[in-house]
Formats: sequence, C-alpha cells, structure tokens
Amino acid sequence: MAADTPQTLKSEMIVALRRFARTVMVISCAHQGQRFAMSATAVSEVSVEPPSMLICVNRGTKIFPALSAGSKFCINMLHSGQSEIARNCGGMLNGEDRFSAGDWDLNSHQIPYLRDAQANFFCENKGGNSIGTHDIFIGEINALNMMDRVDPLLYVDGLYQPIWYHSDRGLS
Amino acid sequence: MAADTPQTLKSEMIVALRRFARTVMVISCAHQGQRFAMSATAVSEVSVEPPSMLICVNRGTKIFPALSAGSKFCINMLHSGQSEIARNCGGMLNGEDRFSAGDWDLNSHQIPYLRDAQANFFCENKGGNSIGTHDIFIGEINALNMMDRVDPLLYVDGLYQPIWYHSDRGLS
Repeated sequence: MAADTPQTLKSEMIVALRRFARTVMVISCAHQGQRFAMSATAVSEVSVEPPSMLICVNRGTKIFPALSAGSKFCINMLHSGQSEIARNCGGMLNGEDRFSAGDWDLNSHQIPYLRDAQANFFCENKGGNSIGTHDIFIGEINALNMMDRVDPLLYVDGLYQPIWYHSDRGLS
Repeated sequence: MAADTPQTLKSEMIVALRRFARTVMVISCAHQGQRFAMSATAVSEVSVEPPSMLICVNRGTKIFPALSAGSKFCINMLHSGQSEIARNCGGMLNGEDRFSAGDWDLNSHQIPYLRDAQANFFCENKGGNSIGTHDIFIGEINALNMMDRVDPLLYVDGLYQPIWYHSDRGLS
C-alpha cells in the first residue's frame, strides 16, 4: 500500500468501482413544468423507520436544480429488460427524449414514474447535503409499487446486464 | 397506488429491497483495542473529488459506537468466494469470531481489513448524520487496494451469490 496522490486515488477509485455491481435506478422528478430522468447507481436505503432512501447527485447534472429546489422524486428500480431506458437516461439522450422509451406515467403529485419498473419508491425530498462534487438527497418514501418478479438490471464493469441464474440456483 | 399506512409502507419497503441486488461489503474498524466487522449493502460512492464513500449504519449495531467516536474504517468489497465471511459478519457470528474466516490484516493505522477482498477502501471518518434508525457516515478515501478480477459477491432476494455470466456475455 504505497501512499497515493489525490489524482492516482481518484483514478483508482473509478477503476475499483467497476467491481461494485449494483441494480440500476432511474431518478425522476418534475419542476416548473419540465420532466427530468437520470440513471443512477449511487442510491441506497437508509432507514425503514421512517422509510427512507438516499440518492447521490452530481451538482452539474440537469436534474440537480430540480432536486435542489425540493422537488419530490421517484426512484425507479429497473428490471432486466430495461437496459435501453438505462442507456437513454444515462447520457445517450437528453431532456424530454429520455421519456421516449418505457411506460412512463404521472402519479397524483405529477411526478413522472416508470409503470413497468421492478419497483417505484415515491419520495418526499428531505433536502440535500453537499459532499465534494455531489449532494446526498434524502427521500422519505410516501408510497411504493413493485413487481412480483425479482429480476434486477445490474450495472457492472461498465455494462448493463441481467443476473443469470444457474438452473439449480434459482431464487426462492 | 392506494395510500399506505406507515406500517404497510415499512413492510413493503423491506420486500421491495429484496429486488435491489448489490455487491456485499464488510465494514471494519478498530476502537479502544477492539476490532469490529459488519456486512453491509447500504454503501455508495458519493464523490470522486474528494474521493468519498458513504455507509448507512443502524445505531443499534455493535460497530456503531466505534464509528460514532470517529474511528477510521475500511470498506471491504467481497468477491464471489467470500459468502462465508458475508454470513459471519452479517449476524452468524459475533465480536472477534467474525475474524475467524478470511485473510484479515491490519494497515498502518491498525485498521483491520480483508487482504483478499475484491477491493479495500480505507477511509477517514468525516462524521455521521442521523436519519431515522441509521446514521450516514461519510468516508474520505485515503488509500485503496483492488484485485484485477471483476467478480463481486451479490446479495439479492435474501441470498448471497456470484454473478453468473453466459459464456457469450463474458465481461470485457
């Protein structure tokens, strides 16, 4: 373990995170008549009492001002068939075009959400906390939907992919 | 989307999170001559500048007082062969027994870490922020190790398991 320069550490961190396989989420919200959606993996549950999640959002993203203004948001957990949506909302498309694929709808608070996601966590925005380039926003869940099937879309080593199960290792 | 009672929402959140596949981490630290290790999935990167991670830790856990006192910590990212360690540190064993399996060592700051993990993120503890039952601790990375191979241990639907690749879908 040689001492790392800040620049080396940053590059190594990015390489190390390629090993950190996670389910892909799309964060969605609306603000001043505009819809926003962004793929994200820096998402975690925080507490089940009250039911809370967190999302880490770069302050340079298009969705940031909406979240920073306190917009309610939805965390849409993608299923294995939604890699196109992951790519669209991950930088392939911009603005309204991000809503061109997928069964998008609005909830009663006019928050856009993906009807056919594996799960939707509808969140009150409890505010952000700045750490370096990002803000950590806390979302207190006020409603959620889910599919029966357990079939997440993973992001690992720069690729979107389903979990493949060996036939003798199916999920219970 | 019927309105949920807080209790229903809590149960639903727990079920929905079974779909949230993620790489298993073990958080480790030392405090007042004692070593602590705990399996965790509520872990995320926050910012690459400065390189920062976060961990969400229940205030009722044994490791919490050590982290709350400001102990530096290590986030050990497990590989597919380390499900025994995941289980040991996930509640199967307690105290020092959690270090009975795995190639544990101490770094120069006397922080215990798993030498053969997929990656180790050595963190300065930048303090916690309470949300419901948990604290979110920010760790600023000051060193890291990693293995070449991309081979994370996943936790999904209550099971620890490797990622299985179809032969025609190997990682690049």
